[in-house]
Amino acid sequence: MAEPLGIALLGCGTVGSGVAHLLLNHAERMTRRAGRPVWLKHVVVRDPAKQRDCELPPGVLTTDLDKVLGDPDVDVVVELAGGTTWARQAALAALATGRDLVTANKALLARHGTEIFAAAHQRGRAVAFEAAVAGGIPIIGAISQGLAGNQISSVQGILNGTCNFILTAMTERGSDYAGTLAEAQRLGYAEADPTLDVDGSDAAHKLAVLVRLAFGMAVSPDDIDRRGIAEIAAIDIRYAVELGYVIKLLAEAWSDGESVALHVSPTLVRKGTPLAETRDAFNAVKVTGDAAGETLFSGAGAGMMPTASAVVADIIDLATGRAQLMFAAQRLWQTDAGQLTVRRSDEVLSRFYLRLTVADRPGVLAEVATLLAMEGISIASVIQHEAPEDAPGQSVVLVAMTHTAKTGRFRAALARINQSDNVREPGVYYPVAD
Amino acid sequence: MAEPLGIALLGCGTVGSGVAHLLLNHAERMTRRAGRPVWLKHVVVRDPAKQRDCELPPGVLTTDLDKVLGDPDVDVVVELAGGTTWARQAALAALATGRDLVTANKALLARHGTEIFAAAHQRGRAVAFEAAVAGGIPIIGAISQGLAGNQISSVQGILNGTCNFILTAMTERGSDYAGTLAEAQRLGYAEADPTLDVDGSDAAHKLAVLVRLAFGMAVSPDDIDRRGIAEIAAIDIRYAVELGYVIKLLAEAWSDGESVALHVSPTLVRKGTPLAETRDAFNAVKVTGDAAGETLFSGAGAGMMPTASAVVADIIDLATGRAQLMFAAQRLWQTDAGQLTVRRSDEVLSRFYLRLTVADRPGVLAEVATLLAMEGISIASVIQHEAPEDAPGQSVVLVAMTHTAKTGRFRAALARINQSDNVREPGVYYPVAD
Repeated sequence: MAEPLGIALLGCGTVGSGVAHLLLNHAERMTRRAGRPVWLKHVVVRDPAKQRDCELPPGVLTTDLDKVLGDPDVDVVVELAGGTTWARQAALAALATGRDLVTANKALLARHGTEIFAAAHQRGRAVAFEAAVAGGIPIIGAISQGLAGNQISSVQGILNGTCNFILTAMTERGSDYAGTLAEAQRLGYAEADPTLDVDGSDAAHKLAVLVRLAFGMAVSPDDIDRRGIAEIAAIDIRYAVELGYVIKLLAEAWSDGESVALHVSPTLVRKGTPLAETRDAFNAVKVTGDAAGETLFSGAGAGMMPTASAVVADIIDLATGRAQLMFAAQRLWQTDAGQLTVRRSDEVLSRFYLRLTVADRPGVLAEVATLLAMEGISIASVIQHEAPEDAPGQSVVLVAMTHTAKTGRFRAALARINQSDNVREPGVYYPVAD
Repeated sequence: MAEPLGIALLGCGTVGSGVAHLLLNHAERMTRRAGRPVWLKHVVVRDPAKQRDCELPPGVLTTDLDKVLGDPDVDVVVELAGGTTWARQAALAALATGRDLVTANKALLARHGTEIFAAAHQRGRAVAFEAAVAGGIPIIGAISQGLAGNQISSVQGILNGTCNFILTAMTERGSDYAGTLAEAQRLGYAEADPTLDVDGSDAAHKLAVLVRLAFGMAVSPDDIDRRGIAEIAAIDIRYAVELGYVIKLLAEAWSDGESVALHVSPTLVRKGTPLAETRDAFNAVKVTGDAAGETLFSGAGAGMMPTASAVVADIIDLATGRAQLMFAAQRLWQTDAGQLTVRRSDEVLSRFYLRLTVADRPGVLAEVATLLAMEGISIASVIQHEAPEDAPGQSVVLVAMTHTAKTGRFRAALARINQSDNVREPGVYYPVAD
């Protein structure tokens, strides 16, 4: 039997407790899969007195990272602390002292990935991050390894479980955003401060990690256009359903080999397709490659044990040596895809859903159609329900689905439509997925 | 740059041509991903004069396996010949002469896996077989690596694209089996002799491979209970839809840690779930683990380029050394899970769909319910449409869904029901997925 693999966990919140549970309570399974014992030697926390979900052996809990990094028994540092300041310093210190790094921290990789990957490469160490995107779904391995023969042309994902839980509840129960968010918080599906989830930032961080793997391109999360879910009105969800769609928060990236378009946005997805049928807190990622075609991966995208499953897979991969070979093959510290540029969002082609609140008088639809046509955009379908008999001259809702158009031209047409005397409120629009 | 990796393909049919296409026409991509050139040196075929889908460089095509195995430049033998006689000999000869083996041949692994894996282990070589199950979906890597921290409790899959294409057409267009099969043959989705596909054998072979990985258990495909799709009547598909289900050919295996139940059977799957929404020739595999929960993998399960994508992923994994480490960790040649037994199909718990053709007279439903109750089985729902007014006393159809019962007790009850004077034809039944 080979030497034990010594592990130091940084952070022991929900995911850290799950990892400790697997390593301590399923030690025999870990040894069998890893080919050697996996030894949880240290757990570094800020407040050792805090109540935790797992029981650690005496002497494991510590607040002293330097002492831990001075211990020659530690082979792997598992960063589960979150944030990008202390976590960045700790990750770089772990690599500098010759440890391999496992991290579930998408924000860290999205912001400081190039620096961290280069530091690892320089020291001949590996970084494994299966848990950073889509929790228990092994999407990092699938893109890096299972689809390695492919040129990938697009990645589309439901990457934030909180948003998907809220949108599913709004769609299936007709409730509004504020009430659903409050319920999600009560059930533990949303944080007390849900900003990074609901504004699309978390999904943008994960998309930045996927784009680096799929296209070999380092994108700053600040360069990813994003719209969150807080503005989504119940009426748009109802109209989407009437048209045969559901609204999902999608993170999407497309490469044409020269430029990459990418965004996070509420998007209409046709009912009956796998992304549309991904419900509640589940995540799903659709990857399109030139050989494999469309492949879809779905499962629990967050939570204690699903995320711990991914962290432990990385630990086992490091124990067997696979993670080191995978990291070398991923070449994440290189910028050899430097010729790829981010495509301006105005250039991105899409169909659009548009809801207008308009005056109930003749000629309004003709005016809207004309203003769209001036930008070369044609309408694929329209819904306009009759106004109530007893309220003539009031506002009515006009919903249109366009054919494919450049986003910039659609926005230009909408700016003119919004200026019309017939239009009572700025139009609401969302892209429609292929 | 490291030495080139020398490849010999055995067989150059559809998948072989796809592999040759990727290796020859995307050589720069292969070199980048593999970290070294991948050199297609030989393609062994029976009939070199046959028309093929790819253009090979001069001197590559040969009929002489011995000569190829005598070439020290050959590092990897890729078996795509199919069948289990010549393919077995060739695979063993490749391993005996020190080559790593890639194979897409599920029948070979299901029948002779233990022998082939042991031979590889003995020679210190690796066997990679991502393409043997579910084509372009990287399910082998997902189970072996991405979910390595989990105890897997079940694997459920749509593993045969031909059957799924036929069932989708029957469900969505109401056509019957014979007509749909003929159409599938015309479109190239079914072989001229579709027996191994439609009788469930192909799915059973793939299930045997998955069970070995997921549970560490060697199962002979002959020990896998199977029912094919040829007997499925259009009327059962319609009643399933009326009940909120679709009929899919599922390959399923469940482990309780002591025994494994497994079968291939047409199964009612609830509409709106990912397996039910897997259409046409697509495959899907759902894996349930104790940490990750339910994960689902779907995509093109067959065809030239999707299967070639998986073969090339294996070649790249061998070039980087990952496949060797994965094979060692899989321990497929061991029989350390020897304590696991195959659970008798009579012991398997399931709900059931039952369609009876019965006399249209009072008391029939009571009799059926009583005979089921004698085996402890209760009815969850019933459909019986009124008989036409102008044809009293004729047969009517009675459809029942049961609550969960042991398969053996359900079969016993059905045997008694079939003997009733009120029952005009033997009852038709299918299990219902959870």
